[in-house]
Amino acid sequence: MRTAILNTGTELLLGDVQDAHLAFIAREIFPLGLRIEERRTVPDGQAIRDALAELFLRAEILFVTGGLGPTSDDITREMIAGLLGLELHQHPQLLASLRQRLQTRGIKWTSGIARQADVPAGAQILPNENGSASGLYLKANINSHIASPHLFALPGPPRELQPMFGRSVMPILHSIVRPSKPFECRIYHVTGIGESLVEEAIGQRISAISGVELGYCSRPGDVDVRIIGESNALERADKIIRTTLGDSIYSTSEAALEKVIIKLLTKRKETLALAESCTGGLLANRITNMPGASTVLLAGYIVYSNEAKINALGVDLKLIERYGAVSEPVARALAEGARMRARSTFALSTTGIAGPTGGSPGKPVGTVYVALASLDQTIARKFFFPSDRETFKELAAQAAFDLLRKKLISRSNQ
Amino acid sequence: MRTAILNTGTELLLGDVQDAHLAFIAREIFPLGLRIEERRTVPDGQAIRDALAELFLRAEILFVTGGLGPTSDDITREMIAGLLGLELHQHPQLLASLRQRLQTRGIKWTSGIARQADVPAGAQILPNENGSASGLYLKANINSHIASPHLFALPGPPRELQPMFGRSVMPILHSIVRPSKPFECRIYHVTGIGESLVEEAIGQRISAISGVELGYCSRPGDVDVRIIGESNALERADKIIRTTLGDSIYSTSEAALEKVIIKLLTKRKETLALAESCTGGLLANRITNMPGASTVLLAGYIVYSNEAKINALGVDLKLIERYGAVSEPVARALAEGARMRARSTFALSTTGIAGPTGGSPGKPVGTVYVALASLDQTIARKFFFPSDRETFKELAAQAAFDLLRKKLISRSNQ
Repeated sequence: MRTAILNTGTELLLGDVQDAHLAFIAREIFPLGLRIEERRTVPDGQAIRDALAELFLRAEILFVTGGLGPTSDDITREMIAGLLGLELHQHPQLLASLRQRLQTRGIKWTSGIARQADVPAGAQILPNENGSASGLYLKANINSHIASPHLFALPGPPRELQPMFGRSVMPILHSIVRPSKPFECRIYHVTGIGESLVEEAIGQRISAISGVELGYCSRPGDVDVRIIGESNALERADKIIRTTLGDSIYSTSEAALEKVIIKLLTKRKETLALAESCTGGLLANRITNMPGASTVLLAGYIVYSNEAKINALGVDLKLIERYGAVSEPVARALAEGARMRARSTFALSTTGIAGPTGGSPGKPVGTVYVALASLDQTIARKFFFPSDRETFKELAAQAAFDLLRKKLISRSNQ
Repeated sequence: MRTAILNTGTELLLGDVQDAHLAFIAREIFPLGLRIEERRTVPDGQAIRDALAELFLRAEILFVTGGLGPTSDDITREMIAGLLGLELHQHPQLLASLRQRLQTRGIKWTSGIARQADVPAGAQILPNENGSASGLYLKANINSHIASPHLFALPGPPRELQPMFGRSVMPILHSIVRPSKPFECRIYHVTGIGESLVEEAIGQRISAISGVELGYCSRPGDVDVRIIGESNALERADKIIRTTLGDSIYSTSEAALEKVIIKLLTKRKETLALAESCTGGLLANRITNMPGASTVLLAGYIVYSNEAKINALGVDLKLIERYGAVSEPVARALAEGARMRARSTFALSTTGIAGPTGGSPGKPVGTVYVALASLDQTIARKFFFPSDRETFKELAAQAAFDLLRKKLISRSNQ
């Protein structure tokens, strides 16, 4: 069924507030086979009416968010009723529960609040457990003077919309949506190869399978490959993707490489230390964003200066003088120094030139060495990521994490 | 001028990726007197063409984001050319610079990449300094067989779109938008007090000044106060804001506290070390995202485990046993240990309970101590930030940075 979202609110179009509803609703309704085909965002005012009128013509299910509050710019309820020629009736029970709610909280009653008890004729009330604005549901009506889709009017604050969606909207959707052919979505999180190489490797062969839709999404050092379709077709696509991309796929569930690493290390009861020069704390920050980081990460050393490399991690000054701070021998020494001092199973290091200054003809901005120290050996890799400072750090971090991941999965296969 | 945004990308409608462009573009064009009147999001495919056709009828300026990449679902360029009846020509210089770019990075050439050098007849190329997809600008044309607005096609990744917008789009907009009454926009970056307290302090008094529009935007630990209007009115508002908020305003130009700190330290030729437990590298990561960080940051220690606190920074085990790792004495010892070892002018430390586990009745999740060690004294503060893990880290980082900033500005006033 054709599904659309209309987000209302001037604050969204001023950039003061980020919309979170599209992502939330899209994920909730996906298992029903529903996909958002269009999303619009319009300011409070007449634009809501225009957008509703247009979307009534093409959506079969329409979610409208925002504009159900008590202030003068909250007019979604009135716009819907007006457009459909429905009268608004004050709902006595709703009014009583609003009075009750405000009294409990010691909030003053204003005339605007009473408007929240107005309900268009024929609408079903969707209770709001976390706010004063009830949601509304109106059945699709193709026989009225203006044809309308299944219409859900939902409150703007995510902490109100989200519980309401699970409790009241989903049961209604289940009754509306005719069971269709079961189809699935699978995502492969890939690192170490760029988007165009991924497409070259799998694009044509996947697109040749009928009933499979293929899409990509990339972030620095990460490509998500997404396939959507029926089970059988997906199975065939899955084989091609796994065979072709192999261990460049770091996960089919976790969209964060550091989460995969924490899981692998936790399972083995192994630990990690970090020696970061050019990534400057990004590795540590990403790992410690994840619950469970404390059982895995013993220590991190941000060794930006040569002095810190020498004093904190015991790197030999002669090594720095001879090869430079950005070099494979220093990357190795950093990783080994961190592993020794933290007494961890593994240690990762990074040293490179993030820029914008500091490059030289032999070592231009973007040059980076990453190293991984473990009990049996220390391995190092050189990369070249010429880009802005933050992207450079992201790419270097992905390269470092991936070096560790490959080590961990290769050992688990032995 | 009527302004709209069309976001393209199936990934946006599946909820895999959050759109960041609306908020960014809305803020950038605000000082020009432009406001987004409509935003649409559609999946890759024919829907792009339909949305373009509709928006051509009502927008005078249209920003289209996404779909300029090298893969087969990137079809924005072709859709625009097709709709306007413009031929696509391969641009030889663009092709050469694409080849150069890939060669430098050692990336293999694919046929999809060549499509990125296709340019609709009459379009101006907007250079992309952080990616391979150039942007495009097409002048409004009301005389062609299909009337079209000023049209900007921009790449999907924010790290590519944002610099392109400042460098290439804004100058074009300045030439398009007719100068209206001279009005300005001023922003005050505030930390240490919440949005509702800021509003309580200044809201009514600023709103009472005619000709001033007041807005707020808040992120964890940060409130931006924005006033817009004519010069004279803004001067009056400025006085009230500065008098009332005082040194809670950390900048009127830099939207990053760490940048203010780097500037202050650099001016004084002073240096910093970090001892991070609960912030886990966020302080170091934020500082090293800024060019110039290397002259200021000597070393950082991520001391998640008690062992690391003891071994790397010489914290006394008895102190931890007696007061707990999350305590004021340990925060002080961490800062002093980092300062001693790195031989820096200052050192900041954090120790707290990020959650979701690890809390206790006496020290619930959200408890955090930050300390600042300097030559003359060590100061410490306790905060309580009960929230999710990442927000907790952000709030703790802001509190730590602000402790240092206040120290630096108090010394400069002596």
